[in-house]
Parts: sequence; C-alpha cells; structure tokens
Amino acid sequence: MSGTDHSAALDWQGPGPVMVLVRPQMGENIGAAARGMWNFGLDRLRLVTPRDGWPNERAVAMASGAGRVLDHVIVAEDLPGAIGDLNFVFATTARGRELTKEVFTPESAMVLARKLIADGQSVGVMFGPERSGLENEDVARANASISVPVNPAFGSLNLAQCVLLMGYEWRKSAGVVADAMELGRTRFAERVEVEKLVEHLMLKLDEARFFFPEAKAPGMRENLRNMFGRLPLSDADVKALHGVFRALAREKGQ
Amino acid sequence: MSGTDHSAALDWQGPGPVMVLVRPQMGENIGAAARGMWNFGLDRLRLVTPRDGWPNERAVAMASGAGRVLDHVIVAEDLPGAIGDLNFVFATTARGRELTKEVFTPESAMVLARKLIADGQSVGVMFGPERSGLENEDVARANASISVPVNPAFGSLNLAQCVLLMGYEWRKSAGVVADAMELGRTRFAERVEVEKLVEHLMLKLDEARFFFPEAKAPGMRENLRNMFGRLPLSDADVKALHGVFRALAREKGQ
Repeated sequence: MSGTDHSAALDWQGPGPVMVLVRPQMGENIGAAARGMWNFGLDRLRLVTPRDGWPNERAVAMASGAGRVLDHVIVAEDLPGAIGDLNFVFATTARGRELTKEVFTPESAMVLARKLIADGQSVGVMFGPERSGLENEDVARANASISVPVNPAFGSLNLAQCVLLMGYEWRKSAGVVADAMELGRTRFAERVEVEKLVEHLMLKLDEARFFFPEAKAPGMRENLRNMFGRLPLSDADVKALHGVFRALAREKGQ
Repeated sequence: MSGTDHSAALDWQGPGPVMVLVRPQMGENIGAAARGMWNFGLDRLRLVTPRDGWPNERAVAMASGAGRVLDHVIVAEDLPGAIGDLNFVFATTARGRELTKEVFTPESAMVLARKLIADGQSVGVMFGPERSGLENEDVARANASISVPVNPAFGSLNLAQCVLLMGYEWRKSAGVVADAMELGRTRFAERVEVEKLVEHLMLKLDEARFFFPEAKAPGMRENLRNMFGRLPLSDADVKALHGVFRALAREKGQ
C-alpha cells in the first residue's frame, strides 16, 4: 500500500505465528490460504496429511504470487509432529465444544501471539478440514481456542477466509496502523489561509447583496464562517475555491 | 457461533452499511461477496452495471446459503444512482491516490459507520472491479476512503475478501464505543444532494467560462467533485452553498 507511509515503518520481516492446516482436502484452499497469509506478511505454513498429497499443483496455481509460502511448507504425518516445537497453539473452532478451553477472539489471540513471539516463543494456529473442522482430539492439543464471531444464522467461513482473518488480525496487532489523511501532494491549509478565503467570500457576497434581510446577516455570516472553519480544506482546496469565487462573481460580459 | 455467549447479546437484525460493488466482473465474486456479508449479518448489496448482467446464475450458485442477500440486490445503471440516497460513503482503495481524501482503516471506518447508522443515517462502502479497482472518478464521489493494511510486497486481496473484512469489522464494531460525531441538529447531506450541489456549481462555472484551458478542464472538474465529495457537508451546509453560488453568479445590477 504505497499511499500510506505507516506501512513502511512496520516490521514485515519478523517471525509470525505458524498456520497449521490439519487434514486439508482441496489444494485450491491450501493455495488460497497461502495467499491470505502472505497478504499480511505471514509465511510459515504447515500441513498435516493433506488429502491429495504434497506437492499439489492446484495449490501452486491458486497461490500465484504467494508461492514463497508454499516453497517453505512443512508437511507432517500427524498433528503432534506438526506442532511439537511450538510453545503456544490456538485451535480455531466454529462452534461450541464440550472441551473446557479458553476462547479468544481473533483479535485478542493475535495480540497474545505477538506478545509471546516478542518473548522469543513460537506460536501456531490450527485450522481443521474444510467440511468438519477440527476434531475434539485435535482441539485438545491446543492451549486455547479462537472463535470468529459469525452470524448465528449463517456461519460458513471457509478455510482460506478463516486464515485470512488471522493474518489480518496479526497485522493489526502490530498496533501502528492508524487512520491517515491522504492529502496527495498537498497539506492542510493554515488557518490564516482559511480566514482569507472566508474574507474573500464575504466581500463577494456583500457585493451581491447576499446578506439580507439585515437582521439575519450576522447569523448568516457566522454560519458560513463556521462551515469553512470546520471543513478539512487543503491548501489546494483553498486555492481552487478562491478561483471559484472569483469566477462566479465575475462581471458578466467581461 | 453458538459457542460464544457474546453473540447472543448482539443485535444482528438492525440495518448495516450497504455494500456497493461497482462494475463487478465475475458472478462468482458477487456470490462470494454475498456470503462474506451474510457471515457477519450484512444483507444490503447493490451492484453498478455488473459485466455479465443480472440476475447471474454463477452468483446464485456461489452464494448458496446467503441467497437472501442476492434476493434483495439493487442494480443501478450508474454510481450516482447507486449511492444517491446514502448519507456517507466510503471508497475502498488499494493504493495511494492523488485525490485528497481521509483514509480510514477498516476498523475505524466501521466504528464510524455504526455511529452514523445509530443516528439514523445511511452508510455505503464502494468496491471497484476485480482487476482495476475504483476509478478516481468513482472515488471522488465518496466522503472518505478505506485502505486495508496489506503487505507492501504482496497486496492482492480479492473483491470478496475485501467485502469479508468489512463485514468482520462491522460485526466487531458492535462491541466498541466510538467517538461521537457532533452534527448539532443537522445530518450529513445525502449523496444526491451533494451531487446536485456540484452540478449547480459546474453549471455556474461553465457559464463563467471557468474551465479553461480545455485540456485542463477534466482535471479541474474532477478536483472540484472530489473536494465536495470529501467534505463533511451537512444538509444545512448544502443549502447554504446553493445560496452562495446563486448569489455570486447573479447578474450584476439585478
């Protein structure tokens, strides 16, 4: 996102959480998950017994542009083998479980993940197979769960969407993403420039006998002054508006 | 998500922001966008001249389970027609623009949207065509932009993913207390009111031969349209500016 300076200041290079796809079925979804990860700077992907084996052409085709994530995939023969070296693992779950487990939102999970990783620990997030989700046996191996707050009447996030949301929250947890005013090559006008603009307008409106009747004139002036004082005008806007006022008020026939 | 108690306490029924897909190309993406919306309780979708017409079988097939979103789609022949009745419109943009426009994160945009909607105002989010995104001409009609903080080395969110993230943040914003937007006794002008104001100004400026030289005219028009599109104008502001333009352009001696 070249237009926003704040991106450049962020560390896109440091380690992030490992995404662990448990018994994924379709190669397309693995590829789409890789894209979702790399969109937010995550590049550590592990697979537990992918149904169609590995490597998978469809995954590669779908991942276009995020191939580097697939290049470094680790494939494990079982879940313990995939997460054994991690310090803290979340299980994404789509519905209530009988298991007693702390349930995090994606946001708070990624905030915790960032804290743990900053402490030198390694973190993973497990995702179940497309149709059935994680088994209780899988979830039992996790430190905690993550549950996405979906519509109770229609909760149908697919695998890649769920990975995408984790990547998104991981990125946000960096904490320095702020709103920005995109001003192109301009800047906010100084107050004195706005003041002069209002004076210009008042003069032209006086000439046009706009402030009428007399009794209402002070209120009309105040309203206009307040409007232009409040609007987020750039210096380019002010310049353009001077031109507009001048053009509109020009003697006809000149 | 039955596993999380907080869901039940939330209002899934109230109105949410309108998602506006501008010149979408593939039906599959329209269907996927509908799913992404309904996952988070959003059900108001509008389309501006979808490439393959409407209704679209592929959209319906892809939307399975979220068909109610498609059942109530509104198709418009142009962007002004699609957003005319809305009070505040965001444009999703993937990169820096020359246009001066406040840029929100998805999170802060949806927090603001929730506040405005709670005040009885209507809010929209515009998304561009799959390949190219919104044109500057489209963005100029928005009050503000939304930019997703993606990896500078790989920003490739697709249309449905982008819609999904807005839905997700809309849903999350239910739990957030936002700063108040103080509008006094007024409300944001509807977009059609801003559109008419700009048309009024353009007409008067044409009469005043403002757009000169010819080669620069399109850029000058776009800049003015963007300025008025971006400024937080209330309905009272719009009324006052009509009066100002009329007064300034009045024949001298009248």
